[in-house]
Amino acid sequence: MSPRKIIIDTDPGQDDAVAILLALASPELEVLGITCVAGNVPLPLTSKNARIVCELAGRDDVRVFSGCEAPLTRQLVTAEHVHGKTGLDGIDLPDPVMPLQDAHAVDFLIETLRAEPSGSVTLCPIGPLTNIATAFRHAPDIVGRVAEIVLMGGAYFEVGNVTPAAEFNIYVDPEAADIVFRSGLPIVVMPLDVTHKVLTTRARVEAFRGLGTKVGHSVASWTDFFERFDMAKYGSEGAPLHDPCTIAYLLKPDLFSGRHINVEIETEGRFTTGMTVADWWRVSGRAANAMFMGDVDAEGFYTLLTERIGRL
Amino acid sequence: MSPRKIIIDTDPGQDDAVAILLALASPELEVLGITCVAGNVPLPLTSKNARIVCELAGRDDVRVFSGCEAPLTRQLVTAEHVHGKTGLDGIDLPDPVMPLQDAHAVDFLIETLRAEPSGSVTLCPIGPLTNIATAFRHAPDIVGRVAEIVLMGGAYFEVGNVTPAAEFNIYVDPEAADIVFRSGLPIVVMPLDVTHKVLTTRARVEAFRGLGTKVGHSVASWTDFFERFDMAKYGSEGAPLHDPCTIAYLLKPDLFSGRHINVEIETEGRFTTGMTVADWWRVSGRAANAMFMGDVDAEGFYTLLTERIGRL
Amino acid sequence: MSPRKIIIDTDPGQDDAVAILLALASPELEVLGITCVAGNVPLPLTSKNARIVCELAGRDDVRVFSGCEAPLTRQLVTAEHVHGKTGLDGIDLPDPVMPLQDAHAVDFLIETLRAEPSGSVTLCPIGPLTNIATAFRHAPDIVGRVAEIVLMGGAYFEVGNVTPAAEFNIYVDPEAADIVFRSGLPIVVMPLDVTHKVLTTRARVEAFRGLGTKVGHSVASWTDFFERFDMAKYGSEGAPLHDPCTIAYLLKPDLFSGRHINVEIETEGRFTTGMTVADWWRVSGRAANAMFMGDVDAEGFYTLLTERIGRL
Amino acid sequence: MSPRKIIIDTDPGQDDAVAILLALASPELEVLGITCVAGNVPLPLTSKNARIVCELAGRDDVRVFSGCEAPLTRQLVTAEHVHGKTGLDGIDLPDPVMPLQDAHAVDFLIETLRAEPSGSVTLCPIGPLTNIATAFRHAPDIVGRVAEIVLMGGAYFEVGNVTPAAEFNIYVDPEAADIVFRSGLPIVVMPLDVTHKVLTTRARVEAFRGLGTKVGHSVASWTDFFERFDMAKYGSEGAPLHDPCTIAYLLKPDLFSGRHINVEIETEGRFTTGMTVADWWRVSGRAANAMFMGDVDAEGFYTLLTERIGRL
Repeated sequence: MSPRKIIIDTDPGQDDAVAILLALASPELEVLGITCVAGNVPLPLTSKNARIVCELAGRDDVRVFSGCEAPLTRQLVTAEHVHGKTGLDGIDLPDPVMPLQDAHAVDFLIETLRAEPSGSVTLCPIGPLTNIATAFRHAPDIVGRVAEIVLMGGAYFEVGNVTPAAEFNIYVDPEAADIVFRSGLPIVVMPLDVTHKVLTTRARVEAFRGLGTKVGHSVASWTDFFERFDMAKYGSEGAPLHDPCTIAYLLKPDLFSGRHINVEIETEGRFTTGMTVADWWRVSGRAANAMFMGDVDAEGFYTLLTERIGRL
Repeated sequence: MSPRKIIIDTDPGQDDAVAILLALASPELEVLGITCVAGNVPLPLTSKNARIVCELAGRDDVRVFSGCEAPLTRQLVTAEHVHGKTGLDGIDLPDPVMPLQDAHAVDFLIETLRAEPSGSVTLCPIGPLTNIATAFRHAPDIVGRVAEIVLMGGAYFEVGNVTPAAEFNIYVDPEAADIVFRSGLPIVVMPLDVTHKVLTTRARVEAFRGLGTKVGHSVASWTDFFERFDMAKYGSEGAPLHDPCTIAYLLKPDLFSGRHINVEIETEGRFTTGMTVADWWRVSGRAANAMFMGDVDAEGFYTLLTERIGRL
Repeated sequence: MSPRKIIIDTDPGQDDAVAILLALASPELEVLGITCVAGNVPLPLTSKNARIVCELAGRDDVRVFSGCEAPLTRQLVTAEHVHGKTGLDGIDLPDPVMPLQDAHAVDFLIETLRAEPSGSVTLCPIGPLTNIATAFRHAPDIVGRVAEIVLMGGAYFEVGNVTPAAEFNIYVDPEAADIVFRSGLPIVVMPLDVTHKVLTTRARVEAFRGLGTKVGHSVASWTDFFERFDMAKYGSEGAPLHDPCTIAYLLKPDLFSGRHINVEIETEGRFTTGMTVADWWRVSGRAANAMFMGDVDAEGFYTLLTERIGRL
Repeated sequence: MSPRKIIIDTDPGQDDAVAILLALASPELEVLGITCVAGNVPLPLTSKNARIVCELAGRDDVRVFSGCEAPLTRQLVTAEHVHGKTGLDGIDLPDPVMPLQDAHAVDFLIETLRAEPSGSVTLCPIGPLTNIATAFRHAPDIVGRVAEIVLMGGAYFEVGNVTPAAEFNIYVDPEAADIVFRSGLPIVVMPLDVTHKVLTTRARVEAFRGLGTKVGHSVASWTDFFERFDMAKYGSEGAPLHDPCTIAYLLKPDLFSGRHINVEIETEGRFTTGMTVADWWRVSGRAANAMFMGDVDAEGFYTLLTERIGRL
């Protein structure tokens, strides 16, 4: 079987970096390109970090595109308090040599979806949805050509992280999320409900380090850095490794379970803007528009992740 | 020690009825009055049901007042799909003989809080907060005279029941809830996070029935009726017994644990109106204004409740 | 013909004072009571000012009631920058001797509307609509007993004064206004569109002073004070005399013309809260709910006003 | 002096057509391109109509680009009830022969602003602001390169046309308008306050017809058609000729007067979304961001317009 074609839309971020590594390590996936967006850190840094990660993986052939530097209608909010100043704090890696592609990420998305056979390209957004929504608005003909969207974002029972009601990726650009969730496409959502169950325990971090590779060492260093924030905040025994859940789903969907339900994006609340209002108990009467994941086989996830990271 | 003076503000409802019975059975509490509000069922029914419950308890001396028949600024939403047409479906009880008091519930609240020593009266709202908010607006001098508010309402990790984001009591009158939560008073909140942990399992229902009293039989019949809805909806092994948690807290606060945090009421969302935005992880930087409960000793709760119901 | 019974609901304010005087001077009207509300200045001052005005008119028999000290759900906004610190700046008048009535203004409204024949009492609100809305919510049975509401508030082509989109009376308590405008009652609205056409020109102020009475002198002094603000702000040749338009309408409705149209109250805008969205051109398809005045015979208005003020 | 470079962003519409003709007839202006957007009629029609107008003017050399087919975040609203099914109802003109340009309107805007000297290109948006806002978001570097924006949209004292609070162009895409009004660029606004003062009276329509040219005949026919709607709705003696005001301002700014004030776009109201909240009386304390026109020399405007139309 030929590999599944994906585009990773990302704002690295340590956990984005691990997601990219997981994809690049997996022969089941063909990464057509990586499109960067402003989010965890500003656009120049996410565009740089994506290339750092590609070079770390020895894959300077991957095309990296720079996209939207601000949300559709709001001011950009970033998360240096979580990810550090560079977005990849935890280990010093050399500046990338590989260039950014000339084209704008949105144009790459549009052109690729038009050029590839309809239904053959899956989008994996693991940052704010600005690039994706802009491409959908700019070129509505591409929407129907997307195979599926597998995204990290939102929360229901875990409710929020950046505010008491909202997860960061959706909060940063709720209007963009609203456009994506109303697109009519098949959407798989990896919310905090799932990602808070794949914690970077000591043993798991050491397993990365134990790989004895530069990549394994980097992943261990990133997760080490990353978890300081969450352990202080939530008192948990490790940090959630959010973004790799999307790639893990493409590789082994059975690791995850959830419900096909209605999910709406709150864009107007005083205290709830950016909330993914997931109708888990199906009380709203609104039509289902997303597969909202709720559980994960955490051991299976880390087994997969560690094995794949070990290949790089 | 003299009993603690309370006013129960309520919209019975089977679980309201159990809360009232628990209070009337407990010598530690002096029920100064029961104020009725529109909620689970319209005002004429809640005003009638409160008296049915008093008479069931053999307490036709308790003063029952009728209050606001509609929320501060919105249309009334009721919940007959949960509570049945009468609000007390599950057992047929005779119409009450005892009269409603002449005074409006809001006037009773105001006059009582002015007449009793400041800081001696605790309010136990277990329905929409319309009566309480109206009294606070009508007579702001009484706010500072309230000892404490111990209310059933809201949800955080359990998120919502009437909508995916909102619990019924707060949803019905979010503006009233907003007024109460901004009052500056000590507030103890029993949200769905707690009440969904005190489920009416088969054994617990049978324990009520096993009391061999009319009251025990009634409580068993109500919880039987009540749980059909929740078992169908949530697939749980019984229904949550929401409202008695407030009275149980007054009797045995150690049964409950929670966090003193900021809680805001969403009043403007497209999908989130009526949500209690509880800052459980303290990410908002907003000042704490409520003790938001998160856990309960369910066995201890039912032991207390059954023992007290057995006294009637 | 027996005089028309009215209740003036007010937050004096110099122009409220003139409205009260106009009513007290007119045998066609029987002022059942004056209910005070927080608005131009805080409640203690409006409750005091109403009595100052009654005593100025030699009418210490008029019953004055104190009502709501804050809007239904918002913080109070006042307008000392327009009316001065006392609300009646412009002339020093003695503190009132006549007492406030014991009853709360809301209770007086309710009891009076229940006691008087249905359809015999007209409400003239010339401040924020908090008292009226509270009474309607508290006792919905009285709504159908009101003959008519003739109020000063709102704006359409004149748009706003306190904000670019909202007139003060509606802005202070938009939720209360929303309740009143949805009441189903006949409503006559005197918006800024009308009141900005009855300007206190030099000649008109001098006509008051020329009456040679204490009341005439007071009215002249108030309008003198009042107009400083508006002349500076709008560059007009005098200040609008807002509130007396309501009483003038009761005396001589032919002075005014307008349209029977839909008027909605904006309660959720970022920049437009408190706007009276008047469908003057009937583009919305929403049902008419108010007689929204747009024009006035200003000369006729001042002739009437001066003649009546001269009687006191 | 070399002609001023402009890009007309438009959704023709009869009055858009007249604006385009006025620009093409004026040697003071160099039309770098015409970018089409969905608005009065859907995008395929506006893209076609712009070319019909260019060909009518004998200017098939003008480049016409097709842009966004829907607002940033909302569903498209159109106005066939005003403009007829084609958008150019009133006279039958042949389908265009000249092609649409291949590039997307947004890309043309970006590339042109990057290619031309900074500060040399003026944007004239006379439809919803979707194309402009998308370009600004897509390529923030171009914002500072725009000389000025002269747009038709909004209303203050004239309040609204499509709703009681909003003018059509802003109403269709308020989020786009919000982006443009927050851009920091010099903005000149031609609101309904101005355009309702340049009415197509009988004499003025006949003056177009009296030119004896095909273009004059077309303009007369369009304004004939157009005014039926407004005369029925407003009872006025002709229809407003909205969009040509922008071009007339570029040719003869002295025809117009206004105020440099703060203008905010309401995006969240229940009844006011799309309103341009213009702080005409400077009560808000917010910084000025637009030259909001309020008056026009209507005779001068029609003299200019007729003379120029006569050149084609």
